[in-house]
Amino acid sequence: MNIIVPAKLNEAKDKMILLDQTLLPTETRYIEIDKLEDTWDAIKKLRVRGAPAIGVAAGFGIYLGVKDSKANTYDDFYEEFMEAKKYLASSRPTAVNLFWALNRMEDRLVKEKEKSLDEIKKSLLEESEDILREDQEMCKKISEYGLSLLKPNMGLLTHCNAGGIATSGYGTALGPMYLGHEKSYGFKVFSDETRPLNQGSRLTAWELNEVGIDVTVICDDMASIVMKQGKIDAVLVGCDRVAANGDVANKIGTSGVAILAKEYNIPFYVLGPTSTIDMETATGDDINIELRDSKEIYNGFGKITAPPEVKFYNPAFDVTDHKYITAIITEKGIVKPPYDENLRKIFQ
Amino acid sequence: MNIIVPAKLNEAKDKMILLDQTLLPTETRYIEIDKLEDTWDAIKKLRVRGAPAIGVAAGFGIYLGVKDSKANTYDDFYEEFMEAKKYLASSRPTAVNLFWALNRMEDRLVKEKEKSLDEIKKSLLEESEDILREDQEMCKKISEYGLSLLKPNMGLLTHCNAGGIATSGYGTALGPMYLGHEKSYGFKVFSDETRPLNQGSRLTAWELNEVGIDVTVICDDMASIVMKQGKIDAVLVGCDRVAANGDVANKIGTSGVAILAKEYNIPFYVLGPTSTIDMETATGDDINIELRDSKEIYNGFGKITAPPEVKFYNPAFDVTDHKYITAIITEKGIVKPPYDENLRKIFQ
Repeated sequence: MNIIVPAKLNEAKDKMILLDQTLLPTETRYIEIDKLEDTWDAIKKLRVRGAPAIGVAAGFGIYLGVKDSKANTYDDFYEEFMEAKKYLASSRPTAVNLFWALNRMEDRLVKEKEKSLDEIKKSLLEESEDILREDQEMCKKISEYGLSLLKPNMGLLTHCNAGGIATSGYGTALGPMYLGHEKSYGFKVFSDETRPLNQGSRLTAWELNEVGIDVTVICDDMASIVMKQGKIDAVLVGCDRVAANGDVANKIGTSGVAILAKEYNIPFYVLGPTSTIDMETATGDDINIELRDSKEIYNGFGKITAPPEVKFYNPAFDVTDHKYITAIITEKGIVKPPYDENLRKIFQ
Repeated sequence: MNIIVPAKLNEAKDKMILLDQTLLPTETRYIEIDKLEDTWDAIKKLRVRGAPAIGVAAGFGIYLGVKDSKANTYDDFYEEFMEAKKYLASSRPTAVNLFWALNRMEDRLVKEKEKSLDEIKKSLLEESEDILREDQEMCKKISEYGLSLLKPNMGLLTHCNAGGIATSGYGTALGPMYLGHEKSYGFKVFSDETRPLNQGSRLTAWELNEVGIDVTVICDDMASIVMKQGKIDAVLVGCDRVAANGDVANKIGTSGVAILAKEYNIPFYVLGPTSTIDMETATGDDINIELRDSKEIYNGFGKITAPPEVKFYNPAFDVTDHKYITAIITEKGIVKPPYDENLRKIFQ
């Protein structure tokens, strides 16, 4: 099985190969990027999306942007780097992982100050490759812990896309599905469409199908019937932020799926790196919910599906109460209730 | 407030005025029908939809089809009527209410056999108007019983379209909203989009907004967050079939909304005429679930939103267990648990 890596360098390491996610699911096109401007454009236009994948693309992008620098001194090179960094950071000013990756590249640059410019460039290449590798290792670990909770031939439900193309290959919620597929577990995956942006039908269904995993798309309002019919043995979702008490902010609709799972006695697993656990946020009530444009609801499919003059409510996320969550699966292990106690432990 | 009646005769009673529901929500167009063929076409192409509204349109349609008959004898007239009936019945062979209305018209015809043809034609006009009037009265009663359970300024959630344009004016689930609006109750209505066919956003939002009711469209996966935020004081839905134990078959997604309502301690009301209560069906397990075309999910609105080559599961209905239902509201009164006992009572 070839996991789809959404952003990686070519063999000569002079170009980035990027899956253009804006064309999915109707067209699978990889684009080659060798300029800083094209990286900016790809992040801006959401050709690459998902926090970890954006971080990886930014790391490669800034390396490609300075690798051919004509600077002769460290100071000149540093100035060029900082200009490129500022430029790339403007591509998606709300993407925390973009800044994280760019700062990490800068830190490495500063750390190698005493070396020759050629060596510095090599270090930057190394660092960008490390970002990719570390994300892959983290996803792999989450996948292994996740898989340990599952059995062959299970039916699995997921919501949104916490998959390989949002990260560096395995993904988080989809990771155990990929790993299970490698071991011929024969999972049957159900993917919620995930309105209004349809990440579940456009992206999750596409990427699972690409490697041959059995995937069935349902509309969001069909989750209850497939659970009732016994088609679902476990629910796996990603997370955007985990509060100290185990409340989880994730794509809109996640909390509804969690409540249904509880009602039908189906385990509900949240998968994500420990970097999404925010011990400074006491509970889910402290998490701000982003409201998005009404057009996503009434004109998302290329045709008007509601009278534009009525009201719309379009929250991007919701908070799933920790009481509905069977376990939170991180690269450092599986966390079970009581979350306030056990989440603290994994940081010790 | 002018309730929108989806099918009625003009003043001269030589034409049917029909709301073309296929153009909603972007265009509000009424078409005039004076031929049997145009009635057939309107039912076939879903210009008129919803079981009661189809029945009303069929009654008017067959009257229009025979009112100018040149027949001189009852037998010739009867033959013409039966030909028209057979033809109209072929427009939507699965619509039970279509046959019900046509049979009712035939029964009246047979009953008036001894009268003059002019008097018979007048009786058929009367009968078709009775179908409309009786449906309106029934909806009005359901609406009144429903409203008795609600209070001013409540937030109400509905799923799909059990509204005026599916019936003859007030509708069932939407009836208490209209009646409350007449009494300045100031309801705030939330309408689930209702994938895959979006009846909630295309039809419910449109018709409530037309009379000035405050309506907000949400995607189906947003029902949990609006309930959690305290925006919803009651859920009102229609029904396609009620089993003897109170299990309810209704538009896909209804059961999920019911489970969320129970979890958030919000009353969940089912509204429908007693004709949908089927005492021959013991429980919801005995109700067959219709599966529909995958295209409705991946290409419902002119844009591909999932890879067509994956699997899809597209059930038209689901069954809501009676344990989640606070009350079933009919034209004969409000039925509360235990349903097996109390549903039997209303037929006594």
